[in-house]
Amino acid sequence: MRVSVVQHGNDADPQRNLERSEHWIREAAARQAQLVLLPELHRSLYFCQQEDTAAFDLAEPVPGPTTEWLASLAGELGLVIVGSVFEKRAEGLYHNTAVVLDRDGSLAGCYRKMHIPEDPGFHEKFYFTPGDAFTSSGRSGFEPVETSLGRLGVLVCWDQWYPEAARLMALAGARMLLYPAAIGWEPGDAADEKTRQLEAWMTVQRGHGIANTLPVLVANRTGFEAGPAYSDGIDFWGNSFIAGPQGEILARGADAEDGVLLADLEPGSPERLRRIWPFFRDRRIDAYEGLRKRYHD
Amino acid sequence: MRVSVVQHGNDADPQRNLERSEHWIREAAARQAQLVLLPELHRSLYFCQQEDTAAFDLAEPVPGPTTEWLASLAGELGLVIVGSVFEKRAEGLYHNTAVVLDRDGSLAGCYRKMHIPEDPGFHEKFYFTPGDAFTSSGRSGFEPVETSLGRLGVLVCWDQWYPEAARLMALAGARMLLYPAAIGWEPGDAADEKTRQLEAWMTVQRGHGIANTLPVLVANRTGFEAGPAYSDGIDFWGNSFIAGPQGEILARGADAEDGVLLADLEPGSPERLRRIWPFFRDRRIDAYEGLRKRYHD
Repeated sequence: MRVSVVQHGNDADPQRNLERSEHWIREAAARQAQLVLLPELHRSLYFCQQEDTAAFDLAEPVPGPTTEWLASLAGELGLVIVGSVFEKRAEGLYHNTAVVLDRDGSLAGCYRKMHIPEDPGFHEKFYFTPGDAFTSSGRSGFEPVETSLGRLGVLVCWDQWYPEAARLMALAGARMLLYPAAIGWEPGDAADEKTRQLEAWMTVQRGHGIANTLPVLVANRTGFEAGPAYSDGIDFWGNSFIAGPQGEILARGADAEDGVLLADLEPGSPERLRRIWPFFRDRRIDAYEGLRKRYHD
Repeated sequence: MRVSVVQHGNDADPQRNLERSEHWIREAAARQAQLVLLPELHRSLYFCQQEDTAAFDLAEPVPGPTTEWLASLAGELGLVIVGSVFEKRAEGLYHNTAVVLDRDGSLAGCYRKMHIPEDPGFHEKFYFTPGDAFTSSGRSGFEPVETSLGRLGVLVCWDQWYPEAARLMALAGARMLLYPAAIGWEPGDAADEKTRQLEAWMTVQRGHGIANTLPVLVANRTGFEAGPAYSDGIDFWGNSFIAGPQGEILARGADAEDGVLLADLEPGSPERLRRIWPFFRDRRIDAYEGLRKRYHD
């Protein structure tokens, strides 16, 4: 199965950003990709650098204009597209939502970001309600999306630091993990700190793939985006990548260059690797109760 | 805080193996290490390559001869020693147990390996009962050991593939993660598969450190050990390492060379890093119930 990941920079014009995405989606299709993953919130600048009520104008329903546009591309080109939408679910209720369009142009499903960051430059708790957990129904909020290419474990950005999210997707039958992201450097950080942060980000996600013997696809944005006057803005670090189920890097983007990455994944299920690495056999579910606690104090 | 990790090969003579460990422990102390971690089952060959009832003769109580010997070294040299014992808890009841000796020579505590492998060449389910889970008492079986250097999140080998284990140790206040290990290559595997396995093993453990913003210490054995006639034996791959709390490699051993690795960890708590990476703030404990399930089917 040939999969692909797009990384690109954005500007203030949503239409131009969609055209950028489309350019690389078409390139992925021309190179026989069966799936393409876009970066987080690929239609706009990363508006979460500040808390601005006017930015809610960017939100839209799902399905809505962006999913319809992605659906028509998916149907025309015959590939699965995983996109990212600032979702307006109701007045005053917004989500950071990944949407999955199948090869026939249908909306296969969506995933509402469960872990929401709130840090200087990343004011997501102002904008996004966390995805619902439906524990009483037996669903977790971490549900893979069923597609013609199998069940996709779609997560979003901050989720990438949480092994719990990846594990729940794997236990629910995900065949790969996919992370649209918008992460970058504070321009003022020292070079060695920047290296540690980038390497940590790649390593922890590769680790999720290894622990669950699943491929990992990550799409990040590129380019510098200015923030409010009191900030230095964010230098989005690119480095989108595709890793195999042993964490091996199959493709990796540059820091600052737009493009599409492609990789051929071993067809079929994770079973071959899980026979030699039977991690799922030995989980100590009798001893994991504490994972549902905030802290053991 | 200066920490260290020993890697060495073993032979069939337990006394000689203890002398090897002692040599490197003394070297670590001479180089001002405050803590030293030994490989898994450092007193013997890796007897789990086959199921042999006679191998239970190697087991011993805790406290017992090996812990007493480690305790006297810890007290004499004034450093914390994390060792590994084939523990005889009762007749017919054995554990793979990490033991922690404090700088005053006292037995600070122990950890009984919770996840037990069973694979060709690694017949641990024959030898070792998994560590107890005490869910009714609120304890999980994943309890850090309190020492004069802080709470140590001691785990053992196969645990290293389980993000749940590292997370539970971190939630219980561990200040670092420590993994005694005995892992190696099947000699007949292809070179690229060997590389993927070694890199996966390092990456997933670095990932646990990153996800919990904790340093990680890993001690593996070295050298080839022959197995039963029907097998090719195991080529233990060394590559012990010390990683900082962002997963950065601070020290790494060679494939096949014995020695001691040292690194200076930032003193104090993980708080500095957790202020910029507040992963613990945002865990979705309302949505993690499924982690206690075997599979979502």
